[in-house]
Amino acid sequence: MAGGGDTPDLVASVSNSGALGFIGAAYLTPEQIASTAAEVRAKTAHPFGINLFAPQPKTRTTPADPDALARAMLKRLAHYFDELGVPVPTALPSPTDRFDEQLAATLESGASCLSFTFGVLSPAAVAAIKNKGMFLIGTATTVAEAVQLETSGVDGIVTQGSEAGGHRGTFLGDFAQAMVGTISLVPQIVDAVRLPVIASGGIMDGRGIVAALALGAQAVQMGTAFLTCHEAGIPEAYKEAILNAHEDQTRLTRAFSGRPARGIVNRFMTEIEPDPTHETIPPFPLQNSLTRPLRTAAAKQGRSEFLSLWSGQGMRLAQRESAKELIERLTREMDEVMSGLNRSR
Amino acid sequence: MAGGGDTPDLVASVSNSGALGFIGAAYLTPEQIASTAAEVRAKTAHPFGINLFAPQPKTRTTPADPDALARAMLKRLAHYFDELGVPVPTALPSPTDRFDEQLAATLESGASCLSFTFGVLSPAAVAAIKNKGMFLIGTATTVAEAVQLETSGVDGIVTQGSEAGGHRGTFLGDFAQAMVGTISLVPQIVDAVRLPVIASGGIMDGRGIVAALALGAQAVQMGTAFLTCHEAGIPEAYKEAILNAHEDQTRLTRAFSGRPARGIVNRFMTEIEPDPTHETIPPFPLQNSLTRPLRTAAAKQGRSEFLSLWSGQGMRLAQRESAKELIERLTREMDEVMSGLNRSR
Repeated sequence: MAGGGDTPDLVASVSNSGALGFIGAAYLTPEQIASTAAEVRAKTAHPFGINLFAPQPKTRTTPADPDALARAMLKRLAHYFDELGVPVPTALPSPTDRFDEQLAATLESGASCLSFTFGVLSPAAVAAIKNKGMFLIGTATTVAEAVQLETSGVDGIVTQGSEAGGHRGTFLGDFAQAMVGTISLVPQIVDAVRLPVIASGGIMDGRGIVAALALGAQAVQMGTAFLTCHEAGIPEAYKEAILNAHEDQTRLTRAFSGRPARGIVNRFMTEIEPDPTHETIPPFPLQNSLTRPLRTAAAKQGRSEFLSLWSGQGMRLAQRESAKELIERLTREMDEVMSGLNRSR
Repeated sequence: MAGGGDTPDLVASVSNSGALGFIGAAYLTPEQIASTAAEVRAKTAHPFGINLFAPQPKTRTTPADPDALARAMLKRLAHYFDELGVPVPTALPSPTDRFDEQLAATLESGASCLSFTFGVLSPAAVAAIKNKGMFLIGTATTVAEAVQLETSGVDGIVTQGSEAGGHRGTFLGDFAQAMVGTISLVPQIVDAVRLPVIASGGIMDGRGIVAALALGAQAVQMGTAFLTCHEAGIPEAYKEAILNAHEDQTRLTRAFSGRPARGIVNRFMTEIEPDPTHETIPPFPLQNSLTRPLRTAAAKQGRSEFLSLWSGQGMRLAQRESAKELIERLTREMDEVMSGLNRSR
């Protein structure tokens, strides 16, 4: 969960409660990765992980003139800056890929596990991670992606079902056609690779966990369920949005970051996407840099209509509780589900 | 499975093998419903069901001038008719809603169960069905739809996950936002209604069935898994398409019928949808009537590029076998999955 949900408190509490907490480090500087990991280590002696975005191939994301798109987008955003009382940026951002530095910091962080999304890592990166003895996890939205990840040398595969909140990990083929539901995606990937599969997408309680294990997954990855935990660092307005939203109030959007991601439909999403092709929205991560100051100001002012309200489709099952309470509840629910299944055999 | 997959042989074989076979009767005349049901009754003494489309409210589906859209569409379709050597229709079809007659035939068919999709039935229809002692099942794609169905008096609810092939049952709200994956949809509907829930969407084998039961469903409904059975009446080219397709080769389309449905991407779908809003495609069932002669000719000629290749997202798990073999395999797989889950507790 890149972007502030995953405080050191949350990560450490998850690891202390018997699960594996992750620092979503994709937007962190190498220094921030080091200091966040140090904070987590100070709070737990248990293993934890770090999640990064794989470097983006230029060919996939770069239109003819991204700066022209960015200048036009800044003009469209100006009245939102005014509305929030924030100065309109005068210079265009030029986000640079910091993956190599982030990886270097991650290798020295004390994390036991490195997971990534948006692609495959280079052989050199994979070798460096393996050399450190870290468990390496890639993210697949299709069978073809899972097979390519296996070939690249990862140790496990997260299957990102279409239910998942936040950015799509799709790196081969079409984003829309790669919206495959967890109940279809998991068994087809399990059949295609020899690696352990970690199911994600729409899993919110013990029922979802047992379902994922029945489909052949060895573990699950959960995001949205932890966003409403007391320790999660997202704005209160964002927590409220998740707790009040329904399963049919999200969709994919490029409005916030330039890359398709599932979020709760709000004013910013609706107004920035008049064009169904979204071709006027600059690519990731340029659009993300353009909208960040708006989102930062909106978070301070509690205005969820400007926030990227990433959420999976199971949000009616989200609860306000501590991470420890959540994980204990999940364990209890899994036992209840198994007992029920065995009774009805 | 409206449209020819569900031969009397398939329906009866499913019921004879311990499951509940359904006649997809939405496109059948009352006379065809009677004769098909008689054929099924001749082949099985076990219960079977009939599936219908609920009547469509005019407001949802009728644009300002549907005939103008239809005339323009016929012009666009003309060269496909030429390519298939079929005369271009000279008269516009005027499909009429035959639900009341279909219902009357269904009530006299000997079927034990009536399921429907696309909406809710009138109180009079519900009363007539209950009066016959038939088990009545509605189809929901969201929690709100499930709640409305419960209020209308149905006995059970099919949850149609986003993975499902064929037409979307959505009747409240936005089709795209109502694409909720099964692993999210089932538990949220189970929590919202007191009725038994029948999970559908992406369920292809014993893993999917146990997963659905873990999510809280009482039963599952499977379509795509039966389409490649020996007894299924779909064209051989359609069976081949399912057996060769991948999970990321389907999407929603209005190209064939005017109503969003999930199918394997093919030439007709791609060529008829140049406009992302699809606003030039006549509404259901008008577009369905316009394209039917094309699809009928294409089926005879084995040309899958003109067929509506409805398929769920789990098609890599489809096999050529008899319905009896499939159902026996599902039972065996369920036992294996349960044993595996219990071993790893």
